[in-house]
Order: sequence, then structure tokens, then C-alpha cells
Amino acid sequence: MSANKKAVVLLSGGLDSATVLAIARERGFELHALSFDYGQRHRVELKAAHRIAQSFGAKHSVISFDLRQFGGSALTGDIDVPKNRPQDQISEGIPITYVPARNTIFLSFALGVAETTGSFDIFVGVNALDYSGYPDCRGEFIKAFESLANVATKAGVEGQRFTIHAPLIEMTKAQIIREGARLGVAYSMTTSCYDPSPEGRACGRCDSCQLRRKGFAEAGVGDPTSYQ
Amino acid sequence: MSANKKAVVLLSGGLDSATVLAIARERGFELHALSFDYGQRHRVELKAAHRIAQSFGAKHSVISFDLRQFGGSALTGDIDVPKNRPQDQISEGIPITYVPARNTIFLSFALGVAETTGSFDIFVGVNALDYSGYPDCRGEFIKAFESLANVATKAGVEGQRFTIHAPLIEMTKAQIIREGARLGVAYSMTTSCYDPSPEGRACGRCDSCQLRRKGFAEAGVGDPTSYQ
Repeated sequence: MSANKKAVVLLSGGLDSATVLAIARERGFELHALSFDYGQRHRVELKAAHRIAQSFGAKHSVISFDLRQFGGSALTGDIDVPKNRPQDQISEGIPITYVPARNTIFLSFALGVAETTGSFDIFVGVNALDYSGYPDCRGEFIKAFESLANVATKAGVEGQRFTIHAPLIEMTKAQIIREGARLGVAYSMTTSCYDPSPEGRACGRCDSCQLRRKGFAEAGVGDPTSYQ
Repeated sequence: MSANKKAVVLLSGGLDSATVLAIARERGFELHALSFDYGQRHRVELKAAHRIAQSFGAKHSVISFDLRQFGGSALTGDIDVPKNRPQDQISEGIPITYVPARNTIFLSFALGVAETTGSFDIFVGVNALDYSGYPDCRGEFIKAFESLANVATKAGVEGQRFTIHAPLIEMTKAQIIREGARLGVAYSMTTSCYDPSPEGRACGRCDSCQLRRKGFAEAGVGDPTSYQ
């Protein structure tokens, strides 16, 4: 692989995508991180994303649009983010924090940026274990998007081949954290909470905070998060 | 089909998508038209889209984001829109008016809106004949997106089936115009020009204007367009 092969990396500001950015860097890619300002209630993650991108020397772009106008999710709408749910409930069914077509929309923009900038590798931090309920976090979805990418684009039609990398897809949260720790990810910069305080402190009780806490504990890595 | 089955219809304000809206109405769907303000130089089409949606009694939403930040197309960037090209050149290769991943992005938003509103039918006015150069106007692309839609969504996973309708895909411009005329489309409301004057008058010379003119002539339908 040439030293300046480029990759577009979806970066939310959370733990998973920060780890993916580190993995893409280790694989020798020149990094273009992409974040979305879509009306999420946890917008503090955009600042986190910017700090993380800077720490990796990655180019960083933010694309803005508003998914709130359509409602239907606890992450963008007026529905409350569930708190203190037991682990078996977290893993069950499709959570109300599911945002319809969100990863499809994110990957579509990533594809546009990738084609425009001559990148043929797109990295995304989806994970099928902890959030088995999100349909757009499964390997089947990633494969379908990759097929689409290669018929949707000029580059694909002209014989280039887009690859969608989802390196975390089969990893547990603890495995992800251990991999990130090995690669020097500054997890103190990342934010996972679905419902942070106005100052950006994690609630510690939403599904995402609970999975993060458990992950650090199981990985045997100190959790640098400042919980409320 | 029940009278209130819902469809999401991509509506650009052009001739093709206005015809598709009429086709979806004829098939008995309750219509939700979706347009995009993406930094296109021919933004006048958004006003046209609104008028067309109103004329069909359709709900109309506009989603805004900016594709200009990535460049790479004559429709959004500083590249000049080509004028007065001979017909054989128009049909050849991928035009510089191609916007990377545009239809993928548009359909992704349509999918999000469809899932949120309980619509399982999405209509899009792509056409493979006049613009054979656009990779994301081919049947292969539509099929790949339909496959994606059914693994990407909660509704798809739960056994609902999304259908992407592209009723114009094999039609000539003249056939489209005849079909629209039959269905009462007010083509005077539509705009096709890639490079209209500030007042919204069509240039008459870009590829899109040329195809439109030729289409009306071949259809034997009067062209209501006011060219510069």
C-alpha cells in the first residue's frame, strides 16, 4: 500500500469511531474524518470528534443537516433517553435511540466525499455485538452498502473498487478498548453519553454509558470518563 | 391498495420528477414530496418543486445540506456548465454535471423519511436513456439501493418490504412528456435548466435544456418553457 492511500473515516466523537480512526492510521491511510451535525441531542460529541481528529493529524469535515424534522428517535426527538436499564434489556430489540436510515445517510455522504477526493476505503465503527438491535450496524448492511457503492459511482463503474471497512463489527466493547489502548487512543477525549449535561458530562446511566463503563472494567483499562 | 398508502417521491422541480409525482398519484398513493437544497447552482428548481407539490396536494419537505464543500461537479462547483453540445456528446460518458453519490444521498434521506412516516414505496425519476452516463440513474443502482433499504432499516428487518419505483427508467424524454401530459402535469411549472438566469429563465443551451426541447418536439406537445 502506498503511504498516501486515502481513507474516509466516519467519526462520531465516541469511543468506537476513535478506535477505528487509530486502526485506519495504523494501516497507513491518509485520514479524512467525517462527522455529522444532524440535530443530535448529544452535540458535544462534535467537539470531541474535532479534538480526536486533530490528535491523529486527520483532516476533519462536518456535514450539517437536520434529522429532527422527521422525528422518530430518542436521539433527535422529544422521546426520553432510557436510563438504568438492565443489561439484558439493552441487548434486546431495536432501541428507541435508533435513527431511521442514519448509517445509510452517513455512509452515502462518506461515499460522495470518498469519490470526490479519490479515496476508495471508507471506515465505519459499527458494532454488531453490543447493539445487535440496530439493523444498520450489521455485517449484512455493510456488505449491501459496499455493493451499492460500486454501482452508484463513476469510480465504481470505471473499475475502481470501494471497500467499506467495519473493523469493530465482531468485537466486544472490552476488545475495542484494549485495541484502542494499544494504538494510543486518548479515550479521555471521547464521549459516549446519549444525554450529557450542558457542560458535556456523561450521565453514566443511559445504555451507551453503561456499555462504556462495563467495557473499561472488562478490558482492565482505567475509564477516564467524568460521569455526573 | 388502500387509498391512503403513502409514498415518498423525490421531487427536483424538473420535468421528470414532476411526471413521477403524477404517476404516484395515479397509483393511489398519499404523496410526500422531498426536495434537497444542496448548494446547486440551479436553486430556482426548489421554488418550482414547491409549486408542483402544491398543485398535486402533496406534502413537501426540503432537506438542506451543502455538497459544495466537496466540489467536483459543474452543478455545485466552479466548473462551467457545458453549452451547445451536439447530441452525440450529451449521450457520451459521464457528464461533469455528475455529482458524486448524489442519488445515493437523496435516496438515503428518502428512506429515513419513509421509515419514519410508515411509507414503504419510494419514487424516483431517474432515467437511463437520456443520461446513460450517470451511474446512479441505472436500473442496477436502483436494485442495489432497494436491497440495501431492506437490510438497513428496522421496518425491513421486521418484515416490511421497501420498493424503489423508477417508472421512467426506460422511457425516452418524449414518452415521459406524453405520459405527463396525459396525467395533467403543468410543465410550465417545471424547470430543467442547469444554468438559469437570476430570474429563473432557462438558458436553452445546456444539455438539460437541449434534451427538454427535443423531448417536447418529439412528443408533439407544446413546450411552455420561457427560454432566454
